[in-house]
Amino acid sequence: MNTLFREGQRIINVGLQSFADSIVQAGGKPVQVDWTPPAGGNRAAGWSLAQLLNHPEVERANETAYAAFLAAQPVVMGIGVARRQLPGMQDRMILHAGPPIAWQEMCGPMQGAVIGAILYEGWAADAAKARLLAEGGTIAFAPAHHHAAVGPMAGVISPSMPVWVVENAAGGNRAYSNMNEGLGKVLRFGANSPDVIKRLRWMADVLAPALSAALAKLGPLELKPLIAQALQMGDEVHNRNAAASSLFLKRIVPAALHSGFDAGAIADAVTFIAGNDHFFLNLSMAACKSMLDAAHGVPGSSLVTAMSRNGVRFGVRLSGTGGQWFEAPSPVVGGLFFPSYGPEHAAPDMGDSSITETAGLGGFAMATAPAIVQFVGGTPQDAIANTREMRHITLGRNSAFALPAMNFTGTPAGIDARRVLDTNILPIINTGIAHKEAGVGQIGAGITRAPLECFTQAVIALASRIGVSVPASIRPA
Amino acid sequence: MNTLFREGQRIINVGLQSFADSIVQAGGKPVQVDWTPPAGGNRAAGWSLAQLLNHPEVERANETAYAAFLAAQPVVMGIGVARRQLPGMQDRMILHAGPPIAWQEMCGPMQGAVIGAILYEGWAADAAKARLLAEGGTIAFAPAHHHAAVGPMAGVISPSMPVWVVENAAGGNRAYSNMNEGLGKVLRFGANSPDVIKRLRWMADVLAPALSAALAKLGPLELKPLIAQALQMGDEVHNRNAAASSLFLKRIVPAALHSGFDAGAIADAVTFIAGNDHFFLNLSMAACKSMLDAAHGVPGSSLVTAMSRNGVRFGVRLSGTGGQWFEAPSPVVGGLFFPSYGPEHAAPDMGDSSITETAGLGGFAMATAPAIVQFVGGTPQDAIANTREMRHITLGRNSAFALPAMNFTGTPAGIDARRVLDTNILPIINTGIAHKEAGVGQIGAGITRAPLECFTQAVIALASRIGVSVPASIRPA
Repeated sequence: MNTLFREGQRIINVGLQSFADSIVQAGGKPVQVDWTPPAGGNRAAGWSLAQLLNHPEVERANETAYAAFLAAQPVVMGIGVARRQLPGMQDRMILHAGPPIAWQEMCGPMQGAVIGAILYEGWAADAAKARLLAEGGTIAFAPAHHHAAVGPMAGVISPSMPVWVVENAAGGNRAYSNMNEGLGKVLRFGANSPDVIKRLRWMADVLAPALSAALAKLGPLELKPLIAQALQMGDEVHNRNAAASSLFLKRIVPAALHSGFDAGAIADAVTFIAGNDHFFLNLSMAACKSMLDAAHGVPGSSLVTAMSRNGVRFGVRLSGTGGQWFEAPSPVVGGLFFPSYGPEHAAPDMGDSSITETAGLGGFAMATAPAIVQFVGGTPQDAIANTREMRHITLGRNSAFALPAMNFTGTPAGIDARRVLDTNILPIINTGIAHKEAGVGQIGAGITRAPLECFTQAVIALASRIGVSVPASIRPA
Repeated sequence: MNTLFREGQRIINVGLQSFADSIVQAGGKPVQVDWTPPAGGNRAAGWSLAQLLNHPEVERANETAYAAFLAAQPVVMGIGVARRQLPGMQDRMILHAGPPIAWQEMCGPMQGAVIGAILYEGWAADAAKARLLAEGGTIAFAPAHHHAAVGPMAGVISPSMPVWVVENAAGGNRAYSNMNEGLGKVLRFGANSPDVIKRLRWMADVLAPALSAALAKLGPLELKPLIAQALQMGDEVHNRNAAASSLFLKRIVPAALHSGFDAGAIADAVTFIAGNDHFFLNLSMAACKSMLDAAHGVPGSSLVTAMSRNGVRFGVRLSGTGGQWFEAPSPVVGGLFFPSYGPEHAAPDMGDSSITETAGLGGFAMATAPAIVQFVGGTPQDAIANTREMRHITLGRNSAFALPAMNFTGTPAGIDARRVLDTNILPIINTGIAHKEAGVGQIGAGITRAPLECFTQAVIALASRIGVSVPASIRPA
């Protein structure tokens, strides 16, 4: 004891800064260690987490799931029609983004998109009748995720829409997405005016057949090398797809021109793609979905295989908890708004496009896309910091997707729900912001985070599945 | 004095490290300042430099020249034929890269390219007869730079070759370049086999007319925004043109498909461009040439308006010294060689493509293209350090070309020959390496530096032009 006091005291303060402040005021020099209780202080989740960390079954399951994710080789097989391609798709079904939601609950842009899809299908003659039909209960609504598909923003896919067919050549599973309509007034932001419906029909009648012919001539198109190249060209393939769209065009155009397909249709299709820097987004999403579905369904795995938002609720799925969604209210996105718009006009976060972050792209790969942070007011250093932070909650780095700004190390990939709880670091998501009223469209873009609550639920459920039940003493009331 | 010694002595050592080492051995703690005599110790150049630094006439001239460089707006006007477009081009003239050189002096790849051009023009029936013709003195050889043109590697342009026509919309001056043949066996590396000649003929007969039709449909194509975008996508538009070539294709294809030109020709032209990630290089070079020519000819200006190599000698021109070339032996490029090749197989540095570095691109913009340093064994940090170093020898930063990795500051641009001498920092150049024998082609790529000797001569000549003559006492013997 004498020695201890002779050598002087050093104080380490863990957690609350205010304790350290008091010591400073008293003349001490404490070392402050930032720390907050795991799981945001949720005792039941914290207890479950403690059981699951280093749990041999979870570790093994995650190795299996992560290996399948890394091994996946998404390949564009062609373009089909939703009704014929999507597993479980029905004739009077409309798919939407995010976890399940009833018509009455849907936000404005999603209802607008559903009305547009009804008009597109010819099930109703005008928007008022389409709304009545949607309310009437004869149309089945389901998450695109339940039918192996993903769609950006409202994510609406109806039976006769064309869909990308992407196959994981390593695992054989298929994933699907609708086709990108471009910017401005578009269905995915809830617009359903005649020009929107007309464009959708043109996409089915001209764009899809022209691209089908080109793809048939080209043969299977591997998406992983294309995405890897785009990452070296400033895309994170969620909010920025300029390079990927150009690279896709460069691959498809020679095949299109030698396909023998109608020259006028090819010219119009190529012009449409060349004018849309987001065209690749839906392919990026289908690729990510196919990689993550390859890792889905491994009992015991805490790997996050889907993060998605329906404009009301944010949902998360784990590999080890099957089809279950863990939901929390969708955050309102902070970001930069187009002139004359602000947060009061914004719909809460919406869309399946956060499948890119789930796969280690988008916000997780932001280091390679400084233009994104610049757009929302940050610096390239912020972008690198964001990517670096995501390393704390992921199972590894995907060397197939090297980031030049990180000295060519791979993107942090494979979100481990346990690590999210343990560190309270929430997955970062780059996203567009939709107006809360149908049809106005995009009003900004920004960066948001997945809600902690989804992960606390997920970890408790996973613990329960592998036989770890929370003692009654700490169970929530 | 007493105070001085009581306070202890601190030693600052400027220059030679070995002096500081001796002090350290004697127990001292010197502060070492790295410094070498300006102009590499050349007394005449050092004297001239001392007169020119902060010289009001030079400062004013540089402001004028640099403003013209920054204001330049290179626009693709179309494609023409060298004989008809290039000022001063003659019927029996062959242009080459770099400063003037006689046939007998030319390195292997340049002689090979000249022989190829003679065969292409139909002036001789076979390579042996073409060689005799080249030796015979009836063909005029001239630097492409003397005819407002630039060409990569051998830079050979003969009268009936198609050329890009680029106009600086701000200044009205025009610059030209030949069209890129792709990789493998190509004229610019000295290959002249029948397939090489056949491709050149196809480029004149199919590619150029198809692109002309597309450009006519598209209208004038501004190159500065396209280059700016490519810089944000990992190109430095010298050794890496993957993004720029894709962006160019994306702009040109819709116009080509709506031009009404023969569909087969369009398909073949588009396929050729889509298969060549270097296609944009020659446009990048013509753009840089047009920007620098806008700044050329300002009396008193020490701005470097051309750096170029003929495979034997490296040449530099200043804005304020007119048509004069300041030459030194061309360096052998250190870099990474393709398997089975090494420095012993390499031709010395060759080509007009260092016009890109002269304009603040290429090696000067390397921070944005970490893939380049990775290719030659460096890291992204090395790339950033290279760009940062070039700030010491340039007049400013070109905000039209923002570099994401440098927090969106502009490329260092406008090499000031005075600053090169004052700092002994030599301009950095990214370049391909040609085999020293004709026709073998590219055997590697690397990073090199412009020789100091060119700048010492240039500064002495500029000083003399503005009436500053070196005193006899320090004039070289």
